[in-house]
This record gives sequence, structure tokens and C-alpha cells, in this order.
Amino acid sequence: MLTIFSPSHRLHHATELKDGHIIPCFEMPSRADTILKRVKDMDLGDVLAPDRYDVSRYTRVHSERYVRFLQNAWIEWLATGSTLDALPLVWPVRELRHDIEPEYIDGKLGFYAMDAGSAITSGTWDAVSASANTALTGMSRIVQNEKVAFALCRPPGHHAGAEYMGGYCFLNNAAIAAQGFLDAGAKKIAVLDVDYHHGNGTQGIFYHRADAMFVSIHGDPKTSYPYFSGHKDELGAGDGYGFNHNLPLPKGTEWDTYGDALDQACKKIAQYAPDALVISLGVDTFKGDPISHFLLESTDFFKIGERLAALNTPTLFVMEGGYMVDDIGVNAVNVLLGFEGRR
Amino acid sequence: MLTIFSPSHRLHHATELKDGHIIPCFEMPSRADTILKRVKDMDLGDVLAPDRYDVSRYTRVHSERYVRFLQNAWIEWLATGSTLDALPLVWPVRELRHDIEPEYIDGKLGFYAMDAGSAITSGTWDAVSASANTALTGMSRIVQNEKVAFALCRPPGHHAGAEYMGGYCFLNNAAIAAQGFLDAGAKKIAVLDVDYHHGNGTQGIFYHRADAMFVSIHGDPKTSYPYFSGHKDELGAGDGYGFNHNLPLPKGTEWDTYGDALDQACKKIAQYAPDALVISLGVDTFKGDPISHFLLESTDFFKIGERLAALNTPTLFVMEGGYMVDDIGVNAVNVLLGFEGRR
Repeated sequence: MLTIFSPSHRLHHATELKDGHIIPCFEMPSRADTILKRVKDMDLGDVLAPDRYDVSRYTRVHSERYVRFLQNAWIEWLATGSTLDALPLVWPVRELRHDIEPEYIDGKLGFYAMDAGSAITSGTWDAVSASANTALTGMSRIVQNEKVAFALCRPPGHHAGAEYMGGYCFLNNAAIAAQGFLDAGAKKIAVLDVDYHHGNGTQGIFYHRADAMFVSIHGDPKTSYPYFSGHKDELGAGDGYGFNHNLPLPKGTEWDTYGDALDQACKKIAQYAPDALVISLGVDTFKGDPISHFLLESTDFFKIGERLAALNTPTLFVMEGGYMVDDIGVNAVNVLLGFEGRR
Repeated sequence: MLTIFSPSHRLHHATELKDGHIIPCFEMPSRADTILKRVKDMDLGDVLAPDRYDVSRYTRVHSERYVRFLQNAWIEWLATGSTLDALPLVWPVRELRHDIEPEYIDGKLGFYAMDAGSAITSGTWDAVSASANTALTGMSRIVQNEKVAFALCRPPGHHAGAEYMGGYCFLNNAAIAAQGFLDAGAKKIAVLDVDYHHGNGTQGIFYHRADAMFVSIHGDPKTSYPYFSGHKDELGAGDGYGFNHNLPLPKGTEWDTYGDALDQACKKIAQYAPDALVISLGVDTFKGDPISHFLLESTDFFKIGERLAALNTPTLFVMEGGYMVDDIGVNAVNVLLGFEGRR
């Protein structure tokens, strides 16, 4: 299996607001480097650098003003005299407006955010554009007849909406790649999100569309981040009704329950019969994850890969979350080895 | 002029996220104590403790589940093992849901918030309920035929919406008092907000109603907090259309421009002819304010009071913002002295 990887991810290393104080992000550079090492140790296959893509590929799923904001935010933040990471302070909730973009950076940061876990730093744009290009390159290789590829993306993407960052995510790599498949001629694409946290951004981007099915298995939002999306009754809207499926599971979920949900998800996808499949691959479902609450064992990740392979569909794995850094390489690569029939 | 004041405000002393780090709130206890000292130094009149009121008075403008959250949040936060102030980490922006209340405190904090400037601490509920009672007591005295009263509220209230906290605000003291006037028999009530920051909470609470007019003079939200409300085109909706008026002014505004806006605001109110008037009194329009951007002089605050007195309407002043602590007493009391024809 091909792996696509860019060392530019290291340019993004930020802080987050959690438990009432500012701490280094759980989403840290060593995550991707640990996975890359495991890819090499297990001889998964060639490792390629991503190609370059124009931002017009990102604005297929994000608004132009949001992408422009991501490009310029750090410069505007520096102009305020601040030397810390750029974090929002107020968010457009409920009846508050999100039609008029503020002119001042404090306002823009909140306007384009859902949380205080996605700080912008000096290297954020270079890292997130390289991450999106990583996903696009994997997509492109599959269009050119690879059966499977692993986009070792960092920062992750699935919490990023059409016009907001959040949950360590800025550009939605999985959605950008899924749209890339459609733009390259696919008629139907499915995104299966197995990260512990609901992929609210991907759901939001495709919620009104029938050409992209989104299916997600995740911690119940009643008790887990991102809290405000991922319920069962979110089935899509308009043309997209019936093409969005959430499978929230309680804290403490082990393999048996998880495997049943995965079977249900795979059945939905098989019925939809997409031309290609994008997997938002989070391994924070692992029992040792510091900010998640499922109890999968490392060996369970083989089984995830095996079941996905049985769908017999061109498949792009896009790396998302997983915060137990010591084990993230083993767990992520176990999914890929399982997919290839190796244990 | 009667002043209503409770020392319970000191029980709330919190931290906020600003400029990428956690700092002590600009909204600090010495603010109210400085104003109280000036009230006494200038012999403004008697100072009374607030009466006690049932929470059912607060739920006339706030949702029951929100008030319950405010009462219980600190206990739930402590149960997580945290010893810091309770701050949210994710907010229900844009398409994210605000119908299903999360069960976990991290989710609840964001569900009921618009920013990270309104931390909940051990004493927050006692302070904010005393602050709301301060406004209600002032209202009650006016219903009993006082011509004017000063509710020296702290924490402030005008950013708090029907179901969210924000901008140092938890219970919307001005809205609770305005509703109190209506419940006591008034047919029409007006709220004039002269704080530097738009009173998004008060606007939201009365936006669909014709029995409460909201008028606000404030820093243009394009460049000033709260950024996502306070534009000119917010005129109310449904039955409330035409009963909401925003007068945003640019950074650097001095008295001449401010006075013109105040005249416009007073004209709107005079035409409406309310049975009573609530003034959301912020003095962060002062030139020395550390987080605001108008340039009023201390003597200008006399003129605000004089113009409000000319409306010849029973008037309740409710204290909101103002962060230049050294001058807050002089500036706030200058408005009140101006109202009474004193300089």
C-alpha cells in the first residue's frame, strides 16, 4: 500500500483550551512521525511526498473567504502584537450572525471556529495545505488505478466544516479528497469515519448531497466531544436525506459492540455501492487513548481493516485522530495491514 | 436616587481566555466597590440591599434548563476533578445543534455559552442571582413610585441570552428587570444600552416582541466584540419588527458623534413612549477603557444623564461594563448626577 506523507506537518504545533487552562495540544507532531516509522518498520509499501495543488481544490468544499482567512490569519494576529498562538475568544452561536465577516482578527478567529482547540500558529497554513495535498495525492493515485492508498495526514480534518475550524482541524482532508474523486469522474463516493469523535465537519459539508454518503461510528455526543452533532436522527437533508448515518456508541464500548456497528456501517456503504471509499481513520477508539472512551485492543484494528477490504472498493485511508502516541503507529498500521490481509 | 447593592458580587472573581491565554477577567470585583464608594462620596442617596426573588423571575426571560445549568455547573465541574475555573472548550456554532443538552459538563458549558470570557466559579451562582435580584429590587421600587433607581449590578448581564452566558454575563439583569416591569402591569418597556459592547443578549431576548423596545449605541461589531450582532439592519422580527434599533459607531468616536446617536436613540424611545425605561449602563465608552475604543471624557457622562432625564420616564439604571477601574466610579456616578440635574 502506498503511503503519502509530508514532513511539513511539523510546522503546526499548537496549544488548546482544555479543562479551564491552555495546554499543548494532544494533537502533536510526534503522532504522524510515529505512524510513519511503523509504516516503514512493517514494510507497508512506498512512501511518497504529496503533489502540490491549487487552493481551488480546497474551495470545492470550503468557502473562499474561509480559505483566505486561514492563509492570512497568522499575519493579522501578529499585527496585534501577540506572540502566543492565535485562539478565538467568542463564537457565533445560536441566533448570533455568521453572514457578516468581522474585520478584526479576534472576530474573524471566532467567526471561523467552533472551539478553542484549533490554534493558528506561524506554520499552520503550510502544514494544513500539505495535509490536504496529501489526501489529494492519495486520491489521485487511486484514480490512476491504485486499489488503496494511505494519506498520512496531519493536521487532521474531519471536524473542519465548510467555513469553520475546530477539533485540531482546519481543512477537511477527507472531504477534499472525496470531492476530488467526484471531480475526477466518480458518480458516488462514501466517507466512513471511524474516529472516536463525530466527524461533524464532513457531515456538514455533504449533508444536503446525494452523491456523497457519510457514515460515522463514534462516541455518543451526549457525553463526548464535539457534543453538538453525531446523533442518530441526523439523516441528511434535502437531496441528501437518507445519505447520512450516525452510529453513536456509549463510553466503554468494546470490540463486540463496535464490530456490530462496523458491520451495519459496511452494509449501508455496500448498498450505496460507491465508486470509491474514503476512510477517516482515527485510532482514538483504542483503550489507552487519553481523551477518548472506547476500549478497542490493538489487535481489534486488524479486524477493522479486514472488514473494510471486504467492501472491495477502491479505498483511500485519511489519517484523523488518535492521541496515545506510543501506540498510534501500531494501531493505525494494523488497520492497513488488516486491509491487505496481513497480521 | 436609591442605589441597590449586594456585596455578594465579590463571590464571583474569574479568569477569561483573551489574546491566546488565560488571564484574570477585566470584569473584577473592585469595579463595583469603586462605584459604591463614589455613590457614597457624592451623597447620591440611600443604599439598599436587594430583596430575595424566586428563580421563576429569571425564567421569565431565560430557559429553565439554562438557569438549572447555572445553579449546578460548579458542582458538576468539581466532580471532574478540576480545580480551575469552569470554561467551555467547544461551542454550538452554525449548523451544530442546540436542541439536545449534553449530559457531560464540558458539553454543557459550551452548549450554554457564546465565549470563553464567562467562567463559572464556586461563587458564581450566588453572585449572579444577587445581581439579578439587585435589578429586580430597583424595578420594584420604581413600581412603588420611585422616579429613578440605580441597580449596581455585578456581574453584568446584557450579553447573556435566553439560553447562553457570555461577555462576563450570566443572568440578563436588564432583561429580567424589564420583564418585571411588564409583569407588574407596564404595557411597554424600553431598554437603552449605552455600554460600548452591543447588548446581544438583551436584543435576542426581546427580538420577536413589540412590548419591549431595545435600542443600543455601541462599537461597530465589524471591529468590536461581540462581533456577531449589533449591525444596523437588525430591526427585530415577527411582532418585534421595528422595535429593535442598533446605532453602531466606529472606533475613536468622541462626544459630538456619540451625542448625536444618543439623541437619535432618545427620539426612538420618546416616540415609543414606554411606561418605564431600563438603561444598560456601561461606562466603557470612556477614553481610558482598556478593552474598548470610544473617547468619551468623564464630563461627557453628565450629559448622558441629562439627556436621559429629559425623557421624563421612570428610569432604572442597571450597571453593565466599564473596565478602567480607577475612573469607573466617577464616570458611572456622573451619569446619575447628570440625571438628577447635579454636576
